Amino acid sequence: MNHYPPHLLHLLELFKKFPGIGAKTAERLVFTLMTWPEDKQKQFAEAILQTKQKITHCTTCGALIGEGSCLFCDTSKRDSNVLCVVAFAKDLFLIDQTRQYRGLYHVLGGVISPMEQITLSSRVLERLKERLVQHHVKEIILALDSTIEGDATALYIKKELNGLNLPISRLAFGLPMGSSLDFIDGGTLSRALQGRLTF
Amino acid sequence: MNHYPPHLLHLLELFKKFPGIGAKTAERLVFTLMTWPEDKQKQFAEAILQTKQKITHCTTCGALIGEGSCLFCDTSKRDSNVLCVVAFAKDLFLIDQTRQYRGLYHVLGGVISPMEQITLSSRVLERLKERLVQHHVKEIILALDSTIEGDATALYIKKELNGLNLPISRLAFGLPMGSSLDFIDGGTLSRALQGRLTF
Repeated sequence: MNHYPPHLLHLLELFKKFPGIGAKTAERLVFTLMTWPEDKQKQFAEAILQTKQKITHCTTCGALIGEGSCLFCDTSKRDSNVLCVVAFAKDLFLIDQTRQYRGLYHVLGGVISPMEQITLSSRVLERLKERLVQHHVKEIILALDSTIEGDATALYIKKELNGLNLPISRLAFGLPMGSSLDFIDGGTLSRALQGRLTF
Repeated sequence: MNHYPPHLLHLLELFKKFPGIGAKTAERLVFTLMTWPEDKQKQFAEAILQTKQKITHCTTCGALIGEGSCLFCDTSKRDSNVLCVVAFAKDLFLIDQTRQYRGLYHVLGGVISPMEQITLSSRVLERLKERLVQHHVKEIILALDSTIEGDATALYIKKELNGLNLPISRLAFGLPMGSSLDFIDGGTLSRALQGRLTF
């Protein structure tokens, strides 16, 4: 039993709801929070309160947007021939930050999880098909995780879109940059071998 | 340049103000926060807003307390012969959780930093002396960090309290539990040798 005041325990519990935040990290964060002046605490709390109001999803592609129209749907600046399919809105930013891709995006908003028996609703696939038609898309890139869920989702989409005769690709599998073979698992190494590049 | 909505950038900046939270971790936390339902976000924000109001410092020992009197100052349950001096309120909980100590505490609220030319105000020392007299304290334990700041603060207090002829001790220095000599720095090993225990 420890003697933390009840509100401190309450704050610790709330911080521990974040992924990767355990008891020790939560303590460090809460003790830091307590050293902040009241106006800084207020600013932080208010920013959290305004989240739903100030950040919305684009109704077309599903990207996270602030006020105004969606930058990712602006076909005057982006190539509407290619559509990159991502699982979650956060993944879109990761792809865009590479600056290797200037096409359109489509956020599924979820993945198929065979382990937890989660499927994609038929509405998700319909919306994707609608966009393919709307933009006369000529190529689809599946930017999904290299996990069981990512694989299952990619396979499902590929199967469902097969009739459209569009080229569909997935992100390459192989060695992460700067990695040493000593630290690479067998599965990654197998896929890196299968996908070896002409040098 | 990335295309995060402005409020998302604002939230990221606020989360990055916590120690140990870098860009990647802030993203993970903020994207998690955005998946929370509005009432959970509200509960989190309100808990932050109530911090100063619901957690205060005991005016006697400086411990963090909720409503009601300070448990750490309850001399009917704690030994008032010993006073454990800690730098910050959070340190008090760490000591108390060991269950090895049942005496009183005194939170300095800061440390001397020779590097940043920060000293302890004379008021801090006066308050400590007042408490030594008030409780007829017979022993002082300095539970300060094993850092330049902790050492400087311990030396200063020892010098200032020398006239009182009270036994003053500091926490022991040595190997952390479960550690292997391979991973121990030379400074720690030197101090562990100096303070070797009869076996």
